[in-house]
Amino acid sequence: MNKCSFGSDNHSGVHPQILKAIERVNEGYCFGYGEDGYTEGVLRQIEALLGNDCKALFVLNGTGANVVSLSSFLDSFSTVLAPSCAHILEDECGAVERFSSCKITPLPHIDGKVVFDEVKAALCFGDQHKVQPKILSISLPTEFETLYTREEIKALAELMHSVGGYLHIDGSRISNAASAMGCSVKEITYDLGCDVLSFGGTKNGLLIGEAVVIFNLKKNRKIADNLCFVRKQATQLYSKNRFIAAQFEAYLKDDLYLQMASHSNRMAKYLESCLREKLGGKIQITRPVQTNGVYLSLLPLSDEAIDALRKKYIFYIWDNRTKEVRLMCSFNTQKEFIDEFIEDLSKKGLF
Amino acid sequence: MNKCSFGSDNHSGVHPQILKAIERVNEGYCFGYGEDGYTEGVLRQIEALLGNDCKALFVLNGTGANVVSLSSFLDSFSTVLAPSCAHILEDECGAVERFSSCKITPLPHIDGKVVFDEVKAALCFGDQHKVQPKILSISLPTEFETLYTREEIKALAELMHSVGGYLHIDGSRISNAASAMGCSVKEITYDLGCDVLSFGGTKNGLLIGEAVVIFNLKKNRKIADNLCFVRKQATQLYSKNRFIAAQFEAYLKDDLYLQMASHSNRMAKYLESCLREKLGGKIQITRPVQTNGVYLSLLPLSDEAIDALRKKYIFYIWDNRTKEVRLMCSFNTQKEFIDEFIEDLSKKGLF
Amino acid sequence: MNKCSFGSDNHSGVHPQILKAIERVNEGYCFGYGEDGYTEGVLRQIEALLGNDCKALFVLNGTGANVVSLSSFLDSFSTVLAPSCAHILEDECGAVERFSSCKITPLPHIDGKVVFDEVKAALCFGDQHKVQPKILSISLPTEFETLYTREEIKALAELMHSVGGYLHIDGSRISNAASAMGCSVKEITYDLGCDVLSFGGTKNGLLIGEAVVIFNLKKNRKIADNLCFVRKQATQLYSKNRFIAAQFEAYLKDDLYLQMASHSNRMAKYLESCLREKLGGKIQITRPVQTNGVYLSLLPLSDEAIDALRKKYIFYIWDNRTKEVRLMCSFNTQKEFIDEFIEDLSKKGLF
Amino acid sequence: MNKCSFGSDNHSGVHPQILKAIERVNEGYCFGYGEDGYTEGVLRQIEALLGNDCKALFVLNGTGANVVSLSSFLDSFSTVLAPSCAHILEDECGAVERFSSCKITPLPHIDGKVVFDEVKAALCFGDQHKVQPKILSISLPTEFETLYTREEIKALAELMHSVGGYLHIDGSRISNAASAMGCSVKEITYDLGCDVLSFGGTKNGLLIGEAVVIFNLKKNRKIADNLCFVRKQATQLYSKNRFIAAQFEAYLKDDLYLQMASHSNRMAKYLESCLREKLGGKIQITRPVQTNGVYLSLLPLSDEAIDALRKKYIFYIWDNRTKEVRLMCSFNTQKEFIDEFIEDLSKKGLF
Repeated sequence: MNKCSFGSDNHSGVHPQILKAIERVNEGYCFGYGEDGYTEGVLRQIEALLGNDCKALFVLNGTGANVVSLSSFLDSFSTVLAPSCAHILEDECGAVERFSSCKITPLPHIDGKVVFDEVKAALCFGDQHKVQPKILSISLPTEFETLYTREEIKALAELMHSVGGYLHIDGSRISNAASAMGCSVKEITYDLGCDVLSFGGTKNGLLIGEAVVIFNLKKNRKIADNLCFVRKQATQLYSKNRFIAAQFEAYLKDDLYLQMASHSNRMAKYLESCLREKLGGKIQITRPVQTNGVYLSLLPLSDEAIDALRKKYIFYIWDNRTKEVRLMCSFNTQKEFIDEFIEDLSKKGLF
Repeated sequence: MNKCSFGSDNHSGVHPQILKAIERVNEGYCFGYGEDGYTEGVLRQIEALLGNDCKALFVLNGTGANVVSLSSFLDSFSTVLAPSCAHILEDECGAVERFSSCKITPLPHIDGKVVFDEVKAALCFGDQHKVQPKILSISLPTEFETLYTREEIKALAELMHSVGGYLHIDGSRISNAASAMGCSVKEITYDLGCDVLSFGGTKNGLLIGEAVVIFNLKKNRKIADNLCFVRKQATQLYSKNRFIAAQFEAYLKDDLYLQMASHSNRMAKYLESCLREKLGGKIQITRPVQTNGVYLSLLPLSDEAIDALRKKYIFYIWDNRTKEVRLMCSFNTQKEFIDEFIEDLSKKGLF
Repeated sequence: MNKCSFGSDNHSGVHPQILKAIERVNEGYCFGYGEDGYTEGVLRQIEALLGNDCKALFVLNGTGANVVSLSSFLDSFSTVLAPSCAHILEDECGAVERFSSCKITPLPHIDGKVVFDEVKAALCFGDQHKVQPKILSISLPTEFETLYTREEIKALAELMHSVGGYLHIDGSRISNAASAMGCSVKEITYDLGCDVLSFGGTKNGLLIGEAVVIFNLKKNRKIADNLCFVRKQATQLYSKNRFIAAQFEAYLKDDLYLQMASHSNRMAKYLESCLREKLGGKIQITRPVQTNGVYLSLLPLSDEAIDALRKKYIFYIWDNRTKEVRLMCSFNTQKEFIDEFIEDLSKKGLF
Repeated sequence: MNKCSFGSDNHSGVHPQILKAIERVNEGYCFGYGEDGYTEGVLRQIEALLGNDCKALFVLNGTGANVVSLSSFLDSFSTVLAPSCAHILEDECGAVERFSSCKITPLPHIDGKVVFDEVKAALCFGDQHKVQPKILSISLPTEFETLYTREEIKALAELMHSVGGYLHIDGSRISNAASAMGCSVKEITYDLGCDVLSFGGTKNGLLIGEAVVIFNLKKNRKIADNLCFVRKQATQLYSKNRFIAAQFEAYLKDDLYLQMASHSNRMAKYLESCLREKLGGKIQITRPVQTNGVYLSLLPLSDEAIDALRKKYIFYIWDNRTKEVRLMCSFNTQKEFIDEFIEDLSKKGLF
């Protein structure tokens, strides 16, 4: 185990209250596969948080959440529109394509955000030689931990709806977005026209567990009703579902999910401000810092210096050419390690 | 929560030592997706247990284990041979077919076991209008918790190998088989020619986690090398892998997995003997009791009586026509509840 | 080339009027992919023949027609119900499963016909562990060239509709059925509740070409609108569509399709009557002769005698155990060869 | 029917000798599905033309050829590398992705040609989160009817082979490439390291029919042996195969395929020279004219003028912004219509 990591928020473990919740339900016997009443009760809590006009199901991981979410909406000849940096395109080894046999059409992006006009231009229909756009998938926060404004999301949802399409939000870090935007999760999903949400947990202190949420049941009822079959087919049905339910119950209780997310975001802001104040001019911050990730260019450092830093602090190089690296903060990132990192960066005559 | 359940071994929770193991690794930070050194160390332990000539990877659940195991071996035009009662055919909502786009060919079975001559007859090759058999999938214990003999498994493996095919063992309860057969897991898999094993954990006291094991690396090296990609695509890669690794480490330590399995088996045997001794003649046991499941016909009882029993003890009706029901024992099934069940069955003037 | 074949109706070539039709449109230039006006005109003729409440598209072959027909109706978690002898199950190398990733559930059959009660029993819904029945696929005539009655088809359609499902008719020989039943194709498809038809041509004297027809546009409009995309994806869109259109125009003109089919049927009846009259008692006819196939058991003959016959007349052994063989008649089967076959069978001291 | 079309070479019909060849084999009866000896004989001719170290099979159309070719080489987690303008990416409605469930990775291109260094940069292996490059698919001629040099193809093949990968050539117009390069088809495929070729026919005067050819049987024998199953599954097996065989026999006889292709190429060159000579300066030719397609920008014309031209001569707008249009010549494009087109363009005061 490492003392510290900026590699990913999933390099962290589990929040103690989450572990306690798991222990609490570890007694007696109950039906498997979510058919115990308890799991259903927690799902109702999630649905209440999100406005009730929705159906939630637990799944195991983020890739699974995306596969289940997207596949539920796709026809065989559909394509998913997504920014070219999307996790579903770049980091899931083709899982969506494998499961759905559908194409994902990459669109240009700016700091992880698709551009309204590019989405609009991609909405061509009727040519029998072409796959037909069906759903737009955006990440919130994006793959660069940046944020769309509420207006931007609403416009994208309306655009998709205007052509009979749908909006998916990959919310593996949705709590970070909510916290940073000063909104409830409902206010940045359902209220803006989101049709389906991958509601993340694992990256923000859970042991394991995500939820898929289908919104707008008047429109999407049939898809919601069939969600359980897609989940099972996608190997995302967990026999001992109560153990995910328990985590989510604790996660929602007293807004623990927001507390954890806001800690991560605060640490990223702190890291950013340290970089600007103490290393200003020397180190370029390459993306807006809006949630829990900080992107910077280590181009001024030698490869050896970068390697030494990476060994101690663990982080990934995003672009080898520009030495852009990503530093992620998590629910239990400690201020001390940020200070230490900054000190190492500034003191050691690296430049 | 229920006081008791014979519904499934996954109606039970988690063994306390398993939970403790999870807590133990919940400190510090480490690489995700199994790329921390610790997870790799535990995988090496599993491989050592199974004879070292194998490669193991962790996955999340049984359906996932089967999808990853089988898909790794299939060409697009392959078919999987399996008994018509197989879990992959009947209880996974078409997950294998969805992921692999391959057919599963159902074969007749006796108490869950395929018959050598039927497998042989199905091994037809070369007709361009037909899918081509590639791998035989058997469950050990079977879907009726019965056992193949070691000779039977060896003969099936040799038959498949003689035509260039493979043998998969769905071992979601492999520990129960090993315990009942008085063998190590290696002796009932690798030693008999098994090419790939779904090594179960969740049904036998884990919180979550299974392993896929590819054997015979001389022959199957390429498939083993590619296993990680198939796992990711199948949505079975868990970001916080160390928490599965910790469970397996505890599972193997001092043969905890065999202790738990042998308890389940013993309880099933006890239930069988109670049924025979105290209800002999009245209740027919319909399948050989060889591991942790007991099948009996409740035909003599009224539907109301059966419903009342099901409410209290939780179990599933396997065949509504013959009122064949399944009673499963688990790692923490208590003798008292079996006694109570037998008492209820015998006292209440049900017949 | 052989002088004669009872192997399959596709061992025959092309009807001369069909070839002429192809030549006729081989001048000038026109849009590809069916987007020339001419092809559309012929499709309208087909639709008119079938009652106008339908949409027709040309495809290339029978497997393609089935893949496009069925896939258009399937959700990812759907299953197709079909008799266990169905062409889609046994003779298409898993094409439907590959393209749709869906399971086909085999049902028992009698002489190729599914049994109403078995279909009904298979219509179970709601269990998240099971694929969900969506469409019943029957062949008309069946794989044994037998016929359902109109009442039987209607009952099956109504049964499927009563659960929100659909009826597909694999009509690779639908003209033979229509001719034998003394009905129009409309009367044995649309009028009985058929939702989608594979309307065959190649087996009945075309060079190449089939049509997929979606009926009941009030209900199935969206599926009809999307048919062209599924066709393209399924590699069944032909660039020079006018050459299929021309064949179908000639096929429908003056009921050529029925003339050809009725010839095949008549030859089969003649073959049957010869067998009964001249070989009665010696040779058992094993299935009702209702369209253009005759099934008989050659069990009384030695293997050598059967081989000699097969060499000269070409036919397939359907069941090696019972020496059941299939003799198919086609649009240009000649009476003389039937006579010669009967003579060979009766004269040569084969028994 | 139109008097003329520059829309596509498949707007033309069938060469008279091809039609005659079809008629010639329309007698007698023979085995279906290519199992008549005649079809096999023609396949051997194709193989001989291509150097004998190969296996050829007939398929129905270009999309089918590509699906069968590529799928035969792919693992579930593979990706196909292709220029972003590739037919398989842009014009086949996701057929390859549907059938194989694999991703196609778009690469930048210049006039339809992939760039060696971009291919090299895309050859990353081993990251379990990423699909793994397996085969490079190039079109020859490209989607812009341009040509790679033999050296370029060889270098791409060697690059792919150096990482255990393969090279596919989408040769729907391979005869045009061969003719233009002054080479045999063998010299621009097998001799350069091509592993699998979609050998086109329909675009160059056939009624219907393409061949898939697997080269280098020492290396690719198993794939070649399994090709027939993939073809059937992909709905590309034609029951009356002799009618494709007859076309190919005529196609190869006296190099008819090269004669037709060289006519198309010559007409394109003639069109280019007319444009340059008579409209030089006014009309920009936008791509090198290397086979049978001419790309030009009609930007100087009004939309109405373009529409009027399109109505009469039929052609497609490739890029609406730059008014780049494509003019295709075919085996029976007449010089007179080119003259007429040029005259219309130059006379009518369009500029």
